[in-house]
Amino acid sequence: MTYIVQKFGGSSVATSERLHHVAEIVQRTRATGAGVVAVVSAMGNTTDELIALAHEVNADPPSREMDMLLSTGETVTAPLLAMALSSIGVEAISLTGAQAGIRTSASHRSARIRQVVPERILDALQRGVVPVVAGFQGMTDELDVTTLGRGGSDTSAVALAVAVGADRCEIYTDVAGVYTADPRVVPEARLLPEINYEEMLEFAAVGARVMHLRAVEIGEAYDMPIWVRSSFTDEPGTVIHRNPVSHMEDRKHVRGIASESNVAKVTVLGVPDRPGIAAALFTPLGANQINVDIIVQNVSHDGLSDVSFTIAQSDLPAAQKVLSDVTLAIGARGVDARADIAKVSVVGTGVRHTPGVFATAFRALADAKINIEMISSSEIALTCIVDARQMDEAAAALHRAFELDKL
Amino acid sequence: MTYIVQKFGGSSVATSERLHHVAEIVQRTRATGAGVVAVVSAMGNTTDELIALAHEVNADPPSREMDMLLSTGETVTAPLLAMALSSIGVEAISLTGAQAGIRTSASHRSARIRQVVPERILDALQRGVVPVVAGFQGMTDELDVTTLGRGGSDTSAVALAVAVGADRCEIYTDVAGVYTADPRVVPEARLLPEINYEEMLEFAAVGARVMHLRAVEIGEAYDMPIWVRSSFTDEPGTVIHRNPVSHMEDRKHVRGIASESNVAKVTVLGVPDRPGIAAALFTPLGANQINVDIIVQNVSHDGLSDVSFTIAQSDLPAAQKVLSDVTLAIGARGVDARADIAKVSVVGTGVRHTPGVFATAFRALADAKINIEMISSSEIALTCIVDARQMDEAAAALHRAFELDKL
Repeated sequence: MTYIVQKFGGSSVATSERLHHVAEIVQRTRATGAGVVAVVSAMGNTTDELIALAHEVNADPPSREMDMLLSTGETVTAPLLAMALSSIGVEAISLTGAQAGIRTSASHRSARIRQVVPERILDALQRGVVPVVAGFQGMTDELDVTTLGRGGSDTSAVALAVAVGADRCEIYTDVAGVYTADPRVVPEARLLPEINYEEMLEFAAVGARVMHLRAVEIGEAYDMPIWVRSSFTDEPGTVIHRNPVSHMEDRKHVRGIASESNVAKVTVLGVPDRPGIAAALFTPLGANQINVDIIVQNVSHDGLSDVSFTIAQSDLPAAQKVLSDVTLAIGARGVDARADIAKVSVVGTGVRHTPGVFATAFRALADAKINIEMISSSEIALTCIVDARQMDEAAAALHRAFELDKL
Repeated sequence: MTYIVQKFGGSSVATSERLHHVAEIVQRTRATGAGVVAVVSAMGNTTDELIALAHEVNADPPSREMDMLLSTGETVTAPLLAMALSSIGVEAISLTGAQAGIRTSASHRSARIRQVVPERILDALQRGVVPVVAGFQGMTDELDVTTLGRGGSDTSAVALAVAVGADRCEIYTDVAGVYTADPRVVPEARLLPEINYEEMLEFAAVGARVMHLRAVEIGEAYDMPIWVRSSFTDEPGTVIHRNPVSHMEDRKHVRGIASESNVAKVTVLGVPDRPGIAAALFTPLGANQINVDIIVQNVSHDGLSDVSFTIAQSDLPAAQKVLSDVTLAIGARGVDARADIAKVSVVGTGVRHTPGVFATAFRALADAKINIEMISSSEIALTCIVDARQMDEAAAALHRAFELDKL
């Protein structure tokens, strides 16, 4: 039997009407003869509301307790979708992450999936029952509840798809798929009918919020095709897979522009230039669950250099707390921070190896009078840090410069 | 070490302020040197809201899915109280019913506790950590989530108190304890400083909503003292235990008046008088999870008799559905139902054996011009079914007649 995993995001399950619509999507898919595993997020803004409630009770709530609390969001949706399915005659059974066999590390709020033991899901599928799994959550060896971090339901879905040997994993969201740029920012943005894992990873890494980065990594590692589509329309969306047919002769092109606000830039000034100094600076940030994104270190003058890096805006207060001790310890001169920063990236498999991509990008930004604060490049992306107020303009300028509105 | 289990009901944990207040109660108790296990209900009206949401999705939701959904109410409160405790320096760990080792039968929505495996709770207590257990819920052998029925958190608490060998179980609620009558109905009602299990059982059975009946049953079976008190005041409340000192010479008195509205009365008319007919009538009701309370069967005329019984008002539509088939099958004449009915009971260990109690009760109701529709009596209670509109008046009349306002 063919299995398909279908994941439904928060806006797709926000109301009882939406749940009934999702139930119909599952029913239609089953009518094609496939067994369906549904994976659900928390309804609407539930997760944010739970976080606010926790902070009302405790400004710095223990992570283990946060996981227990936040996991309830998805545990509410799963039985409700099972009820919606049963109301249209589709037998369904809701499962928590733990019941679905999702075993994780014990790093609360950003647990990693170690293993999926899919016996109970397979048993349901074999009996013709739809397992409805609460996404985002798992269980440690000590039977504690964990969550997989923001967007973790995507990761649950792809991991389950791999574990049950599904044909594909469908990610239903409130956008029609992956675009050449955020359509709210760049109206000429085009839907990409397909994209490969590496490009999608880069898109996700530089801020295209369509999918959870780790979900794409799992998809790539196990060669699981991922369909990203909208639960609000019937459009086919974007297929993420290894070798898009349309790319065969076309691997060096720029595929799209990603942009991300809510970024903060931190500069540690006058860092003594000696071995081990980077470790001394970044280890305490990592230990405090602060993810550093882009790091730029200038050449040193008189044995001192400035180290700049970007982090999520929400991590800035915590980072400043950590760094006030660290700068003292390493003898740096001080810390400078800016919260109103954005990332704009040019993404495509051949970005670095295609002559002229960098020049085109910098020219486009210069013509638009946009100052570049930091630059970072990877194999398949060029990222520029700009003032947040110029983010949309920068994305539009780059989209035009690479003619992404044209097929 | 002395252990105390403290259970906090929905109104005691309804807001972050209330949670902080509850955390202080736990902290104060720990300061006396005792180890505390906290058991919590869902916040405020959460359970009702979840039920409404479920019915929006499915008019007749599967019980297994309802349990998964409803259990989230308590699973939200437990980590929040753990966070509140940690914010005042008390180390705490939230546990679901499953994690707390509460193993139940698989009868969803009214599961019975089979066993409590308290290892994880004892481990926390021995490390000086407060286990905060989500009440109302448990787990089947198949790892499915179950709930214990309305008010089930009391049952969780008393069962846990027995399992860890606690000194006592404290039930914190929004009333100051057990009264001689509902103070909202009878203003002269007096708080009872102590009461024995049998009387409390009878109070609970006939509608005093202070405590879950099954919790009192467990308390009685294992001789676990239960303190019922308010989380809003510092009053000592009511102690439920085997041999109240103040009763020693006083076992035959009426202890209080209980009243309950939301009762429906059903009469099956013209039931053929033959063996097995009662079973044929009541087995289908039980199979549909409808609890029958009081049953009265009149003497038969011409081989036919009328059978009347009371059920919860909310069960009336389901009961009428079941009975329309049953009456046909057993050849009864028809079904008559009234939804606007109430129970008023005189409760006390010696009710039946004290001369004059029945006469006094009937005289008091007659003087108040209250018609009695059905009468039922047990060892320690006399229950009269009256028109719902006359319930308060009946309770007040009985309270006066037995001079319960006097010590």
